[in-house]
Amino acid sequence: MSSASSQGANSPQQREAAESQVIGHGLAASPGAACGAIAFSADDAVAMHRRGVRDILLVREETSPEDIAGMEVAAGIVTTRGGKTSHAAVVARGMGKPCVVGSTGISIDETAGEMTAGELVLREGAAIAIDGSAGVIYRGELSVVEPEILQALNGKLEKDESALFGHFSMLMEWADERRQLGVRANADTPEDAAIARQLGARGIGLCRTEHMFFGSDRLLAFRRMILAASDEGRYAALEELRPYQKEDFLGIFRTMDGLPVTIRLLDPPLHEFLPHGDAEIEAFAREAELSVEAVRKRINETREINPMLGLRGCRLALTHPEIAIMQIRAIFEAAFEAMKEGVEAIPEIMIPLVSTVTEVRRLREIFEETIERVATEQDGDLENIPYLFGTMIEIPRAALQAKQIAEHVDFFSFGTNDLTQMTYGLSRDDTAAMIHHYLEQGLLTEDPFTSLDQQGVGDLMRIACERGRKGNLKLGICGEHGGDARSVVFCHGLGLEYVSCSPYRVPVARLAAAQAVLG
Amino acid sequence: MSSASSQGANSPQQREAAESQVIGHGLAASPGAACGAIAFSADDAVAMHRRGVRDILLVREETSPEDIAGMEVAAGIVTTRGGKTSHAAVVARGMGKPCVVGSTGISIDETAGEMTAGELVLREGAAIAIDGSAGVIYRGELSVVEPEILQALNGKLEKDESALFGHFSMLMEWADERRQLGVRANADTPEDAAIARQLGARGIGLCRTEHMFFGSDRLLAFRRMILAASDEGRYAALEELRPYQKEDFLGIFRTMDGLPVTIRLLDPPLHEFLPHGDAEIEAFAREAELSVEAVRKRINETREINPMLGLRGCRLALTHPEIAIMQIRAIFEAAFEAMKEGVEAIPEIMIPLVSTVTEVRRLREIFEETIERVATEQDGDLENIPYLFGTMIEIPRAALQAKQIAEHVDFFSFGTNDLTQMTYGLSRDDTAAMIHHYLEQGLLTEDPFTSLDQQGVGDLMRIACERGRKGNLKLGICGEHGGDARSVVFCHGLGLEYVSCSPYRVPVARLAAAQAVLG
Repeated sequence: MSSASSQGANSPQQREAAESQVIGHGLAASPGAACGAIAFSADDAVAMHRRGVRDILLVREETSPEDIAGMEVAAGIVTTRGGKTSHAAVVARGMGKPCVVGSTGISIDETAGEMTAGELVLREGAAIAIDGSAGVIYRGELSVVEPEILQALNGKLEKDESALFGHFSMLMEWADERRQLGVRANADTPEDAAIARQLGARGIGLCRTEHMFFGSDRLLAFRRMILAASDEGRYAALEELRPYQKEDFLGIFRTMDGLPVTIRLLDPPLHEFLPHGDAEIEAFAREAELSVEAVRKRINETREINPMLGLRGCRLALTHPEIAIMQIRAIFEAAFEAMKEGVEAIPEIMIPLVSTVTEVRRLREIFEETIERVATEQDGDLENIPYLFGTMIEIPRAALQAKQIAEHVDFFSFGTNDLTQMTYGLSRDDTAAMIHHYLEQGLLTEDPFTSLDQQGVGDLMRIACERGRKGNLKLGICGEHGGDARSVVFCHGLGLEYVSCSPYRVPVARLAAAQAVLG
Repeated sequence: MSSASSQGANSPQQREAAESQVIGHGLAASPGAACGAIAFSADDAVAMHRRGVRDILLVREETSPEDIAGMEVAAGIVTTRGGKTSHAAVVARGMGKPCVVGSTGISIDETAGEMTAGELVLREGAAIAIDGSAGVIYRGELSVVEPEILQALNGKLEKDESALFGHFSMLMEWADERRQLGVRANADTPEDAAIARQLGARGIGLCRTEHMFFGSDRLLAFRRMILAASDEGRYAALEELRPYQKEDFLGIFRTMDGLPVTIRLLDPPLHEFLPHGDAEIEAFAREAELSVEAVRKRINETREINPMLGLRGCRLALTHPEIAIMQIRAIFEAAFEAMKEGVEAIPEIMIPLVSTVTEVRRLREIFEETIERVATEQDGDLENIPYLFGTMIEIPRAALQAKQIAEHVDFFSFGTNDLTQMTYGLSRDDTAAMIHHYLEQGLLTEDPFTSLDQQGVGDLMRIACERGRKGNLKLGICGEHGGDARSVVFCHGLGLEYVSCSPYRVPVARLAAAQAVLG
C-alpha cells in the first residue's frame, strides 16, 4: 500500500530540503513543494503578481472566500489556523497547490505584515519554502522541480525524455484493468475537469457550485442577492447570476462529454459570502448602493455561532428556494444547449446536508417542476438528458434514515468531511492543535480527516449502505478521503460504485482501487 | 399523555392574558409567566434590582455566562436569538424562570436601549410580560400567581387551603408506585438540589460544574487560570478555585445525603469564560494586572469558528489535565468531609464529550491516581465512598463505540441536547428560525430539541444501549428531553434506569414514567 499512499508522485517535488532551516511545522494539507516571497494578504499577493513577482507564498492566519484571487496567483499557501479540510486546505488541493495549515512554530501579525519564528522576523517579500507533503516550512529559497508526469501531460516534455511517464501510464493501465471501483474527481471548473479527465477520472463526483460565486464579478451579484431588501431585488440579482452558472456548467459538460457530472447545490452558509472588515464593508456598500448600516445589520443577522451546524445546504434551499431553482435552471439550460452542440451532458443533481426524508421529498418536487418548465421553454426532450437526483450522506441522521431517504433518490454520495465532523463532534477548522496533541499522546492513531475512521464514521457508512441499498441506488464517496489509499480500500469493501477525489489524487485512487481487489 | 406534557402545572401562571396586546412570539423555552420592567443588560438589571425594582425582565439578543447575575435578579428572560437549548433557555429552566427565546416580532437595539415591535418603541423600565409556556410576549403588566404547589412546599400556604397540593401529592404517590424509571434532577447548587429533592428527585443526574465558575468572585480566578502566562500562575489560580468547588460539592452532598450525585467535569470551551467587549476586557486586564494586548491576544487564540465542535469537554481534560484534576480533588475532599459529618456522599464522576475509548481509558487512569492520592492525604477509606465513573453519550461516535467504551465505565448518561445537535448537524443556537419554518412547512412534526427524535437520535441511543449493555452498566439520560413526557416514555422503552431533568420538571417526569408502564 505504501506506493499508493505516497502523495508526491505527481506533485512538485522539493530538492535540497535537508540543507535548509526548518522554521515551522503544520498539517500536510496539499502535497508538493513551493517556494517564494511572502504575501500576508490576498490583495498583496495580487499586487505582487502584477508587479511581476513570479513565486509568491500566501501566508495567513486562515483563508476565506475573499482570498481566492490571492490563492490563485500564489505558488503555495500557509496558514496558522485550520485543519486539513479548512478553506485553505480544500481550495489548495482543488487548485493542486502545495499547502501547509494549522502551522505551529510561526506566528503571523497580518496588520504589521510580519511573520515571527523564534527570533526570526520575516516581512513581505522574504523568501520561504514549504513542503506540503510533509507539512514543513523552511526559511529561504529552494529549487522546485515540476513533476514529469504533469510536464508530459502538458506536452512540455518530449515523450522519449519521459521514462517516468511511460511507467506511470503502464501502471495506471494495469490498475484500471483490475479495479472494480470507479474513480471520479472533485472539480468546479472546466480547467479542473480537464486535468481530472487527463489523469483518468471517469466523471465528476463533486462539482461545488459555491466556488462559482467566488469570482469578483459574481461575488458582487451574489452579495446583492443575499442583502436584497425586496423579493424583486433578490430575483434580479439571481437573474444576473444565472448566465454565469449556465456558462460554468456548459463548460464542464463539454469537457466531460459522455461522463456523469455530479453537481452539488449551494452548500455553505450565506454569511461566508459577505464582506469582512470595515474597509470591505464600506467598499461593498458603495458598490451595491446600500447604506453601511444596512449592510452591517444584515451581516449581523446572518452571523451564526456554529456555522457548520447552521443554515446551509438543503436548509438554504428550503428556506430560500429561489437560489436552488436558479441553479437547477442553469444546469438544465446548459444541458439542453450542450445537447444541441452534440455534447452528451449527464447531470447528477446532488442535495447537500440532508437530515430528513421530508427535505429530499420536498426538494425533488420543486426541482422536477422546474426541470419540466425548462424542458418546455427549451422545447427539449428530457429523454435525451439522463439526469439523476441524489443526496449527500454527510449528517449522521441521514445515514440512520438511509432506507427512507433511498426511496426518493437515485444515488447517495458520502460527504465524509462533514460526516467525520458530525460523527466525532469535531470542527475541522478548530481542532488541528488538539488532533496533533491526540496523535502525539497516542489517543488517536490517525487524523480522521486524512484517513477514514473505519470504526466510527465507517460504521455509520456501513449502516447507511445496508439500510439504503435497493436495486438501482448508486453509492459513492466525495469527501477528501476519496483520495486516501486506505480509505479507498475501505470503500471497495463497502461495495461503493465509485470514489471521487481532487484531480491530482486520481492516480492514487486508481492504484488503491486495484490494490483493494488484490487484497 | 396530555396531562403530563402540560408544563405549567407547577410554574407561575398568567392571568388576563387575553386582555393584553401581543407584541412578539418566540420559542417556549422555560414555562411560567412573568411581567416586569425591561432591562437591556445584566448590569442594568442588577442596578435596577439594587434600586428596589422588584420585577425585571431581562431582554437581550442572547445571553452568555456574563449575564448570570442579571438573570438571577430577573423574573423572566427574553432573547431574540437562540433555540430551546441556548444559554438563556438552559439557565432559565435551571433557575425555574419563565423564558422566551428566538423571538420574532420584536427587535432589540442594546446600545440604544430600545426594543421595537412594529410602530411601538419600548425603553428600559417599560412594562412587558411573557408567557414562557406558550412563547408569547405581551405589552404592559399582567398579574401573575405563584403556583400553589410551590407555595405549599415553601410553607406559604396553610395546608388546608391547599387542595391542589393534596391532589398533587396523591397523584405523585400513585405515579411512584407504578413507574419503573428512576427520576433525578439536573441541579448545580445546593438550592436547586433542595428544590429537586422536594419535588421528588431521587438523585442528581447532572451537576454542571461550569455553572460554579460563573459567580463573579470565581470568574476572576477562572479567567486568570485560562490567561495565565506560566504554569505556576495557572496552578495558583486553580488552587484559588478549589475551595469554592469543594464547598459547592459539599453543599450538594449534604442536601442529597444518601442519594447519587452525578458530577459532570468542565464542559464548555474556555473562551466562553473570557470577557467580551472593550470595556469588560479593559476592566478584567486591570483587575488581573495583565496588559489589554495580552488579554486580547489570548482571547483571539481561544476563539473558535464552531465552538460546539471545538476544544471542550474531555478534550479540555486531556489537553489541560490540571483543571479536571482540581475538580476531582475538590469532589473527593468534599466527599471525605461529608463522610466525617455523617453525610453519605455518592459521587458519580461523568466525563463529557467522549468520542473515543482512548479518552475514557486515559482519563480514568489519571483520575484514579488523583483519587488514591486524596484518600491517602485525608487518611480516608475509599470503601466508604461508593463512587462511580461514567461517560456522557452525546457524540454519535460514542454511541457507535458503546461496546468498547462500556468496558471502562460504570454508567452511560445520554446527553441528548448535544446528541441531537450532532446527529442532526443542527446548532441549537442558530436554527430557531429554521426549525420554526420547518414546523410550519410540515418538514418537521416536532422540534427535536423539545421532544426526542426517536427515528434518528433515538435510533442511535438504541444502538448504544444494545452495544454497551453489560451486567452492571447503568443507563440514564440527562438532556432536556428527560423532562419531556413523550421522551420519558421512549426512555422507558429503551430500558434506561433513570431520566434526569430540570427540578421543576421532576413531577412531569414522574407522571410520564408511570404512564409509560401503563402504556
